[in-house]
Amino acid sequence: MKTKALFYHAGCPVCVAAEQNLAAALDPQRFEVEIVHLGHDKSRLAEAERAGVKSVPALVLHGQAYHINFGASLSALR
Amino acid sequence: MKTKALFYHAGCPVCVAAEQNLAAALDPQRFEVEIVHLGHDKSRLAEAERAGVKSVPALVLHGQAYHINFGASLSALR
Repeated sequence: MKTKALFYHAGCPVCVAAEQNLAAALDPQRFEVEIVHLGHDKSRLAEAERAGVKSVPALVLHGQAYHINFGASLSALR
Repeated sequence: MKTKALFYHAGCPVCVAAEQNLAAALDPQRFEVEIVHLGHDKSRLAEAERAGVKSVPALVLHGQAYHINFGASLSALR
């Protein structure tokens, strides 16, 4: 069974680069990557916050939030 | 041919978690990951800096530096 990886972003340039380079680099044999655009899908802000996401872009893997560089803080997306 | 990915760290807890979770999640078919401990191998600090690394842990992929959370700034490792 594949592990779910969640990539949260908000369409910012930093986010897009991280998505194309880093989220796309994960092993497709082991991970199923879901891309969540928090600017479009504000209903998922609470879920991201519970996972420990403070800013985007961020990748949640094995229950841990990894903030990748800095695009925008979550509070700016509300 | 595999793309080289460089994971820079300094042995900090944030670094170790990122190494085990994120660096290890890259697709081994496409990437060859080199782990560089900048605390032990200070001769590579300049190389990391040239790649745009400001803090560890960081992953350099396709010439781009991705800072993953925050463990220590590069200046603290000199």
